[in-house]
Amino acid sequence: MRRYFEDYEVGSSAEFGAIAVSADEIVAFAQRYDPQPFHLAGADESSPYGGLIASGWHTSSMAMRVMVDEVIDGETSLGSPGLGPIRWPNPVRPGDVLRVRVNVVAAKPSTKKPDRGAVTFQVEALNQNDEVVLVVEDWIGIVKRRPNGTP
Amino acid sequence: MRRYFEDYEVGSSAEFGAIAVSADEIVAFAQRYDPQPFHLAGADESSPYGGLIASGWHTSSMAMRVMVDEVIDGETSLGSPGLGPIRWPNPVRPGDVLRVRVNVVAAKPSTKKPDRGAVTFQVEALNQNDEVVLVVEDWIGIVKRRPNGTP
Repeated sequence: MRRYFEDYEVGSSAEFGAIAVSADEIVAFAQRYDPQPFHLAGADESSPYGGLIASGWHTSSMAMRVMVDEVIDGETSLGSPGLGPIRWPNPVRPGDVLRVRVNVVAAKPSTKKPDRGAVTFQVEALNQNDEVVLVVEDWIGIVKRRPNGTP
Repeated sequence: MRRYFEDYEVGSSAEFGAIAVSADEIVAFAQRYDPQPFHLAGADESSPYGGLIASGWHTSSMAMRVMVDEVIDGETSLGSPGLGPIRWPNPVRPGDVLRVRVNVVAAKPSTKKPDRGAVTFQVEALNQNDEVVLVVEDWIGIVKRRPNGTP
């Protein structure tokens, strides 16, 4: 069943996971997009975080995948104009298992385009020790409104 | 030569590029992290953006790579606590050639840890038509201060 703008309930909340984080994927992402030493193979106790950690962009992208799999309907999504601020309060390490908490904080029909509305989420990711590793405020998604007569 | 906290001049600005965007990379990124239809092979004129466009996370990650290659020194970087808001005012399409503009907007020594400081950047990416495709406000980097006696 399609998920339209009207189907996002402001104040609702849900949690999804588990997302297993591997050293191989941390390094693969970093090699292409964020090759700082603490995101690459060879990061050890002498590195600023005492070992390998994931790029914040990688952590954010993993959360995006959860949003697409669990929250956003690709058939009604019209993309996003932006989001944030983003915070990464704790590092993500190989072997971590993350879960993602999604809060629907606002839903506003477009005044200019009657076929769509903006849904605003707050998204958090936590690790297996309940440490927050990602917070995204004001994650905006543009979503199609339910067409007249569609159940 | 190492680039320390003291080497970031508030008010300075620089532009880097060119970054060629390929359909293959757009799709590869999306398959793993953002599999919405308009980021995947098969996106055509009937899709919301009239064809394939890059995930905003992919565009942001491409800008991160430029930051690491051109601005941030991996040997003095201590990572980032966060950044944003982020805006994606225009889509990124296959064949686009992007450049990245980096403005140093603030630099503040840490009051608690005398070996480091926070540098704040504003980062924009533009395409070959001078359309802004990415704006990141308050992109914070924690950077080592120059040790006493280091030239």
